[in-house]
Amino acid sequence: MIEATAADVSRAFEAAEAAFEEFRRFSAEKRAVFLEAIAEEIEALGDELLSTVSSETALPIAERLVGERSRTLNQLRGFAALIREGSWVAARIDRAIPDRKPVPKPDIRRMLIPIGPVAVFSASNFPLAFSVAGGDSAAAFAAGCPVVVKAHPAHPATSELTAGAIVRAAGKTGVPSGVFSLIQSSRNEIALDVVRHPLAKAVAFTGSLRAGRALFDAAAGRPDPIPVYAEMGSSNPMFLLPGALKERGEAIAQGMAASVMLGGGQFCTCPGLSFGIDGEQLTRFSEKLSALMENAPTPTMLHAGISRSYEDGVCRWSEIQGVHAIRSNAVAEANKQQTRPALFITGVGTFEKHPELSEELFGPSTLVVRCDSPEDLNRIARGLHGHLTATIHGTSEDLVQYASLVSILESKVGRLIFNGFPTGVEVCPSMQHGGPYPATTDSRTTSVGTDAILRFVRPLAYQNFPESSLPLELRDANPLGIWRLIDGRMSKEGVR
Amino acid sequence: MIEATAADVSRAFEAAEAAFEEFRRFSAEKRAVFLEAIAEEIEALGDELLSTVSSETALPIAERLVGERSRTLNQLRGFAALIREGSWVAARIDRAIPDRKPVPKPDIRRMLIPIGPVAVFSASNFPLAFSVAGGDSAAAFAAGCPVVVKAHPAHPATSELTAGAIVRAAGKTGVPSGVFSLIQSSRNEIALDVVRHPLAKAVAFTGSLRAGRALFDAAAGRPDPIPVYAEMGSSNPMFLLPGALKERGEAIAQGMAASVMLGGGQFCTCPGLSFGIDGEQLTRFSEKLSALMENAPTPTMLHAGISRSYEDGVCRWSEIQGVHAIRSNAVAEANKQQTRPALFITGVGTFEKHPELSEELFGPSTLVVRCDSPEDLNRIARGLHGHLTATIHGTSEDLVQYASLVSILESKVGRLIFNGFPTGVEVCPSMQHGGPYPATTDSRTTSVGTDAILRFVRPLAYQNFPESSLPLELRDANPLGIWRLIDGRMSKEGVR
Repeated sequence: MIEATAADVSRAFEAAEAAFEEFRRFSAEKRAVFLEAIAEEIEALGDELLSTVSSETALPIAERLVGERSRTLNQLRGFAALIREGSWVAARIDRAIPDRKPVPKPDIRRMLIPIGPVAVFSASNFPLAFSVAGGDSAAAFAAGCPVVVKAHPAHPATSELTAGAIVRAAGKTGVPSGVFSLIQSSRNEIALDVVRHPLAKAVAFTGSLRAGRALFDAAAGRPDPIPVYAEMGSSNPMFLLPGALKERGEAIAQGMAASVMLGGGQFCTCPGLSFGIDGEQLTRFSEKLSALMENAPTPTMLHAGISRSYEDGVCRWSEIQGVHAIRSNAVAEANKQQTRPALFITGVGTFEKHPELSEELFGPSTLVVRCDSPEDLNRIARGLHGHLTATIHGTSEDLVQYASLVSILESKVGRLIFNGFPTGVEVCPSMQHGGPYPATTDSRTTSVGTDAILRFVRPLAYQNFPESSLPLELRDANPLGIWRLIDGRMSKEGVR
Repeated sequence: MIEATAADVSRAFEAAEAAFEEFRRFSAEKRAVFLEAIAEEIEALGDELLSTVSSETALPIAERLVGERSRTLNQLRGFAALIREGSWVAARIDRAIPDRKPVPKPDIRRMLIPIGPVAVFSASNFPLAFSVAGGDSAAAFAAGCPVVVKAHPAHPATSELTAGAIVRAAGKTGVPSGVFSLIQSSRNEIALDVVRHPLAKAVAFTGSLRAGRALFDAAAGRPDPIPVYAEMGSSNPMFLLPGALKERGEAIAQGMAASVMLGGGQFCTCPGLSFGIDGEQLTRFSEKLSALMENAPTPTMLHAGISRSYEDGVCRWSEIQGVHAIRSNAVAEANKQQTRPALFITGVGTFEKHPELSEELFGPSTLVVRCDSPEDLNRIARGLHGHLTATIHGTSEDLVQYASLVSILESKVGRLIFNGFPTGVEVCPSMQHGGPYPATTDSRTTSVGTDAILRFVRPLAYQNFPESSLPLELRDANPLGIWRLIDGRMSKEGVR
């Protein structure tokens, strides 16, 4: 890997800006073809790509990387389908009323347009789906924005391979080369140069709170602040209500252990925090979970930095008085960056005395908090900071009895799950992957699902423009056949 | 006016937070009734309100204040209609596919929910439409958010009267009183307390770049940053193309003088900057505009601060070598805060050498820049920072010849106007009032029109929730009859 310089960053953004004027005028069809070509080129990399990723990240090829590649291709093709259909631009038309009193009403038409060059920061834990050609890049390209990717230093060869696929796809589909650039660097200063570059118009990031906040602060401190969409993880609290624990406590323990262990606990949706009301059922649940975690295998982590901070965190939590720590009995080989899964159990008093226990401990661990009453659950829910998700395990009677808990949780997260687990984020129009701070820096947006495209656009209104100078989306006849809001009514019809 | 203290700010937000849980659960119908009741109470204030506003702002009752009140009522009633119709929540449903391989697809449903207590900063130049019960408050209430208004110190009695109307409307419609509070203060420290209060979830502001940026910085520096929607004005560049100058140069001069003088030039859409290609037609246009401005009356400004900084700005610009200043011949009475309208004329060289000439000079003034070529226009357009609007005066032939200019301007503004003037912002679904920085801090949003509501919401997804625990908007039968995206298709039908 060759370390990029500040001059490389500038060149990338200058090329992006130069390409923007042409790229944003591409028809949706032409951008869709580009996205599909990227998917094809990634597929064409075949086993070489998967073995490279696996050697750089220790993630297993079978299921995990095969699955992640297929998700990556689906994202690219999904955005191609979205822009081909075309209604996402939210076209609106309010027709003129020339004889309105006291003043005539003008003709106003509005749609979403691309914001400009986007800086994408790759994640380490999704070397394909949230990396060089991942969801952020796909969404930005779909919107019509050039992309400058700051690759994650944990998988440079994977990034180069994927970048090659994008470059070839651009070449084959007539996309100007400045539309994509790759910046490889392990230096914070280069990351900040990317965010501070005057031609950057938005930033997408997936990673730690510390890094995400640093980028946010840099962007907010610019002479012209730009939006930062940082997804900074979460401990995804779970509330285990009495009826559910009674009905299927052991099954929940099994599901939770599997969810915690998935991908070595290196998912931002890993369920790191559970609350239940103390008693026989919660004890049985905890015993089952303890047994599962004691016998859990030792996953190999993505990179040494993650293992280290996981082990540091486990140490810190274990030393808190009142926290009972249970660790896997398996032997971890430190030189292989293996770590031992951990379960922590504590009471509500200790939990509330130690705010660090509600921070994310990234890795295969989870904390069970024994509460004394439904009021405890409500109070704890009220005290939560923002998370990506919250989960409730309950019966329908539980849901009625704990309606106020559900109501409180609605204000704390981006996604509420009932009788399931937060891992496994479905890529679909309804998905919301983004919650109140510190889960993300912008809870109004999602980084997964079709609405991820909305992060890279802004509305533009045309007033009294002649038909021939309007974009196709806003012309009377609706040549693209998209849904539009015409004089306040949704319609696929033409105007007049 | 009693100066609020930091404790008053805290009390306001604590009351707002306490009211939020109940208010956000109100049906849309109940919130709509509240908005309509506010409109009724404002109407019931009758002439007392108008004469109070006029005495505090020097704005004339006839036409201006009568018109602004009617706009204010329309905004409140417009948002009531929007939420009654209900589709604005952007409901989406992706149905489960339990037998999907390799993993089952969950049922996911998503809609927009209110973000929490909103801080609204009143503008001085719209004492009704952008003040206590103005567009920002109406949009926040419509979304289901409590509002803490930091009143503008230039019209305290108007603010008190309007606040009374809101309080009475809340009382009559069963809205908890914490849903609205008024903070009166002229101290910056109190404004910052409002933005930094831990319970504040978003900020809306209309005013100067300096004040808007200070609020933005305070919000970005919070432990949990919150969005700031600051509309900070703009000089709204106009491009006068040769065909239009030839066809109707004098009419454009007349329209421009009227637009510049409207409300004493105290609109954020005041056209402060024009560009044309030097020659006989531009000279004739400038002469006509000079004559109109020389004979323009002397408007009384909103408050002494505005007159002072206007006069300072006029002085600074007049002293720039190469800038020709023409001022109204009328006599301004300084003790009445009257000011003399001003026209500045300069060449492209001087304009490009003095970046201060492209900053907003708030008040009844405008600058005409004589350019040498179409390339000058393109280069100047490329160099523009963000503005709320840009206007092109041209013939259809001009539009074809200057297509690249239009294209450049699309990236610089939120609204493009053809053969019109930027003042007179239509309140409708297609309106976009917000442009790239420094026009606003968030060009993805609008502060005028129905989409203004989107500033105060965020998406929430429900995964596998039982029907009975879902909001009405997301239930199978679609009891509210709203538009929803079901499995990727727009529909008003029920599910299944």
